[in-house]
Amino acid sequence: MQILTTAAGLQAYTERARQTGKRVGLVPTMGALHAGHLQLVRAARADCDEVIASLFVNPTQFNSAEDFRLYPRLPEADAALLAPVGCTALFVPSVDEIYPRPTVLRFDFGALEQVMEGAHRPGHFNGVATVVSKLFHLARPHRAYFGQKDWQQVAVIRQLVADLSFDLEIVACPTIREADGLAMSSRNLRLDAEARAVAPLLHRVLVAAAAEVRQGILPAQVRASAASALASEPLVTPEYFEVADAQTLQPLSEYAAGRDVVLCLAAHLGGVRLIDNVVVAA
Amino acid sequence: MQILTTAAGLQAYTERARQTGKRVGLVPTMGALHAGHLQLVRAARADCDEVIASLFVNPTQFNSAEDFRLYPRLPEADAALLAPVGCTALFVPSVDEIYPRPTVLRFDFGALEQVMEGAHRPGHFNGVATVVSKLFHLARPHRAYFGQKDWQQVAVIRQLVADLSFDLEIVACPTIREADGLAMSSRNLRLDAEARAVAPLLHRVLVAAAAEVRQGILPAQVRASAASALASEPLVTPEYFEVADAQTLQPLSEYAAGRDVVLCLAAHLGGVRLIDNVVVAA
Repeated sequence: MQILTTAAGLQAYTERARQTGKRVGLVPTMGALHAGHLQLVRAARADCDEVIASLFVNPTQFNSAEDFRLYPRLPEADAALLAPVGCTALFVPSVDEIYPRPTVLRFDFGALEQVMEGAHRPGHFNGVATVVSKLFHLARPHRAYFGQKDWQQVAVIRQLVADLSFDLEIVACPTIREADGLAMSSRNLRLDAEARAVAPLLHRVLVAAAAEVRQGILPAQVRASAASALASEPLVTPEYFEVADAQTLQPLSEYAAGRDVVLCLAAHLGGVRLIDNVVVAA
Repeated sequence: MQILTTAAGLQAYTERARQTGKRVGLVPTMGALHAGHLQLVRAARADCDEVIASLFVNPTQFNSAEDFRLYPRLPEADAALLAPVGCTALFVPSVDEIYPRPTVLRFDFGALEQVMEGAHRPGHFNGVATVVSKLFHLARPHRAYFGQKDWQQVAVIRQLVADLSFDLEIVACPTIREADGLAMSSRNLRLDAEARAVAPLLHRVLVAAAAEVRQGILPAQVRASAASALASEPLVTPEYFEVADAQTLQPLSEYAAGRDVVLCLAAHLGGVRLIDNVVVAA
């Protein structure tokens, strides 16, 4: 596995790969890798000749300086995990390498980012779209792999790719969970034992809500049940719980035939902010 | 010269070119070609093995439906002009080919687009950045060529390329003028004889203003002289005349050592809107 630290080095690597007819897969990550990330690398390896993983804690997508500072960074451990699952090149740039000058351009995704993560983390999706565009231009992948745990992020990136005609395919992989249902997340490393013990509540609430959606219980009632279940645990401070159209991400007041529904939540547990979601197919 | 009409056809063409090690140049145009465009193609030909010219009257960068409707369209004549100057592929897509679905994403370039063309044509640079991003992704050029007559457009595109790390180089070519100083523009075709006769006033005003800048006459006085000169011709309705920093495009109240100055104007002549500019090197 080759280690690349410069933008020019990555561009040269991937240009050579494409010139020799290789299929290139990209797995953008912020590091502190877990089984969810490794699943993305395995999926890329099954499709592509070259698998480039990036490790970059992107400052522009953090709306909290504290969250950015505390985000786990374990580059050596990450590198050791990546090679065995088929990663062929690891891109670990500095912040200056990705942002040699401050960015002027701002992205606005309209209604898609006026809900949930976009509403609660101002500027978050601008930072995501900026760094993902940069990584796409540096790595030039045929396919790029993202986890469905960040459902809204995947929707925003699909819109970015469609609207700017990026010549690549987005592959979204299912959320990987711990045995007790907790969605794998790099931020789980920051949970203390007490918070970790109650964290599976988030997924339980989503599963219960999904059952209600399948029974046709209206979104307002599903929201109320979820709010009440989350309020039962004093260690959990809910930020939002939403019943939304799975594609447009807009909150639902009723269900539409043939449209998937996504249930999304964000909550704070002992100073750590976690998100999760479950999709209910139409 | 190959004629390509689909996005997929252009992508396949340019992917083959790059796989065989060829240098690709792109000249994005809205057609109705004149000597200014042909200069861009010649410059591309001098640098590159493949020169792709695009002809696409981009609806999203017009803030006036009337201006879009009346924009000159001469695709056969354009094709006949391009082959002799070294264009190897001509991309002539339909609107549906470029915009299969409405675009959701919006670009904001901040202060760079809050002046001059951006201020007077709301949404213009969002449309420019969108279509240029698409053309870059479809044509995958090593270099892309633009005319300096659209000085602010070049500044916006350079910012786009820097901020999203597009792997290509922007080449800006000098404005080509008629013998009487009128900047070549596709919209000149729409000038009637009377408007055409007075149109060289625009360049004369810029040249006189540039002389004042070189003498150190302050921007406020330069603006006043230009306004008075433009007002002397009843067929000309000035929209703006600006003395600005050539890089940031922000209006100047005084000159800064070592900074180039750009003088920009827009005016209406007999229903046709024209722009022009002159740069005064520091």
